[in-house]
Amino acid sequence: MKAISYKEGQLTLLDQTALPHQTVYRTYTEHEKIARAIEDMVVRGAPAIGITAAYGVAVGAREYQRGSFREHMMRVIERLQHTRPTAVNLHWALRRVHAVITENPAETIQALEEEAAQIFQEDQAINLAIGQHLKRLVTDSSAFLIHCNPGRLATSDYGTATAPFYLAHEEGTQFKVYSGETRPRLQGALTAYELSQAGIDVTIITDSTAATLMQQGKITAVFVGCDRVAANGDVVNKIGTLPLAITAHYFNVPFYVAAPTPTFDLSIEDGGAIPIEERHATEVTHLRDQAVTIEGAVYNPAFDITPAALITAIVTEQGAIEPTYEAIQNLFSKGEKQ
Amino acid sequence: MKAISYKEGQLTLLDQTALPHQTVYRTYTEHEKIARAIEDMVVRGAPAIGITAAYGVAVGAREYQRGSFREHMMRVIERLQHTRPTAVNLHWALRRVHAVITENPAETIQALEEEAAQIFQEDQAINLAIGQHLKRLVTDSSAFLIHCNPGRLATSDYGTATAPFYLAHEEGTQFKVYSGETRPRLQGALTAYELSQAGIDVTIITDSTAATLMQQGKITAVFVGCDRVAANGDVVNKIGTLPLAITAHYFNVPFYVAAPTPTFDLSIEDGGAIPIEERHATEVTHLRDQAVTIEGAVYNPAFDITPAALITAIVTEQGAIEPTYEAIQNLFSKGEKQ
Repeated sequence: MKAISYKEGQLTLLDQTALPHQTVYRTYTEHEKIARAIEDMVVRGAPAIGITAAYGVAVGAREYQRGSFREHMMRVIERLQHTRPTAVNLHWALRRVHAVITENPAETIQALEEEAAQIFQEDQAINLAIGQHLKRLVTDSSAFLIHCNPGRLATSDYGTATAPFYLAHEEGTQFKVYSGETRPRLQGALTAYELSQAGIDVTIITDSTAATLMQQGKITAVFVGCDRVAANGDVVNKIGTLPLAITAHYFNVPFYVAAPTPTFDLSIEDGGAIPIEERHATEVTHLRDQAVTIEGAVYNPAFDITPAALITAIVTEQGAIEPTYEAIQNLFSKGEKQ
Repeated sequence: MKAISYKEGQLTLLDQTALPHQTVYRTYTEHEKIARAIEDMVVRGAPAIGITAAYGVAVGAREYQRGSFREHMMRVIERLQHTRPTAVNLHWALRRVHAVITENPAETIQALEEEAAQIFQEDQAINLAIGQHLKRLVTDSSAFLIHCNPGRLATSDYGTATAPFYLAHEEGTQFKVYSGETRPRLQGALTAYELSQAGIDVTIITDSTAATLMQQGKITAVFVGCDRVAANGDVVNKIGTLPLAITAHYFNVPFYVAAPTPTFDLSIEDGGAIPIEERHATEVTHLRDQAVTIEGAVYNPAFDITPAALITAIVTEQGAIEPTYEAIQNLFSKGEKQ
């Protein structure tokens, strides 16, 4: 199961709007169509969006015909920039590929493809490292709550918050995962799909049922991914993360956020300043094109803001840190010294 | 919009599984089919289930042909008793109609129909009284969160938790209601439907979005109904009530439970002892017969238990009380003295 693959100007995405019922791969050779695939959530998940956008720029470079190559590339980056506002990995990946653009199209295409492949490979290493850090919590008879899909389908490899499950399962550990369905887009179904495909014991619940499981004392910890971490440790992630964090706090269940370092945005002071995408009403009123409720007013923010105070630890590829301004500054200044 | 009506052995229910897309009335002349209508949620909501079961016994009395009339009636009551385990109004209504059964079928039929009509009328008065007590909170520019459908469709008249909205709207008050969709059965769509039909400003949200609205400071109070109140003030209501209560507590948003006195069960010490119905996996995995997720393991409790400590007040037809053992004892001993 590969969410993203690339070969010589052809970007192939596993269509996540068709899963888990149909396995459809779509191949793109135009950056405009890649931008729309991101908007329509054919591909989703902060790391996967970053990787896709990086390859999208390479595809865009191959589309160049005449005029200023730099201006053409700026238009390509601009278009991909404006697909989804919340996940910061998108901007981070576009900044990285932007840096390798020269006046020379052929040279640039090669450099872009190498840079995108590099981002992809780094993400694989990040998945593995986060998985190793969180794996110590996944012992026999433990049980976890997971929200949305911070999994294989959202990343290059083992996922972020799912990585410890894959690693522990490979070692023969017996544990349980409860996957919140994640209305409105039901990405929890993707998590249930990919974990069950791997043979991991996964149970699907409505998002509201998570509180009951925590009340019953059944949950060892909650694992979520994230779309952006502010400088103070506030986390923006899929809508439904905030009530999970509040509930975990109320029942003293540890709450871990898996966050690759490219997900941090030190320019943002706190979660309140992160732009929250509002998506179309039909995501709530319709399911597979069928109306499920009245067509009235709908409020449909795609993400919510979890205050740092509710988070036990943020787990990056470099290890777990406290969700504080100081710990985050320290993590990144360490990086600069290396 | 009448959820329940009865005339001479014919019980008519507005099919809530077809709403809001189709308005279908179904007429029943056999208690077995009424029992199935309760199980299949053609009719739902604690008060409406009680009223339906009471009329179901009257319908059952008319089905009597030969043998012991009392034994026949015991079988009818037994069948209706075992439809849904959580809401206590069902048992309360069946105890009331049970008390009017004699050896005489014709006499019993008349007494049962009168008793069921009495329960119906009392519920109308309860709706109005609860509405009057809660209405003071519904002022211009206020905004409320509501969960599931404690509305017209769940009761005889104005609903329990919706009654203050209808009354305030009739007086021209301008306010906003956010209706949580209430997965898995989406009864929040019924609430949005009935409130919008009345011209009330209602917005649909996924259940997970409630926390964001409270975080934004937009919610004046949360109103919910309930299926059973324990002697200590713990409340069992539709799944999703517990995380709402925890979230409201975290953000200091008042949390009111609308509870007719027949919803109290003083024989149950605390919420943990109330039987919680688990319903079929397909309620989660399918929507309108279409698969929305993988067909794996599902945990689907229909209700959850909200501890008394999270409840601002329980509002009965006799007014608001604190959710404590003493206040509840006091409420019912006052009733006995009258």
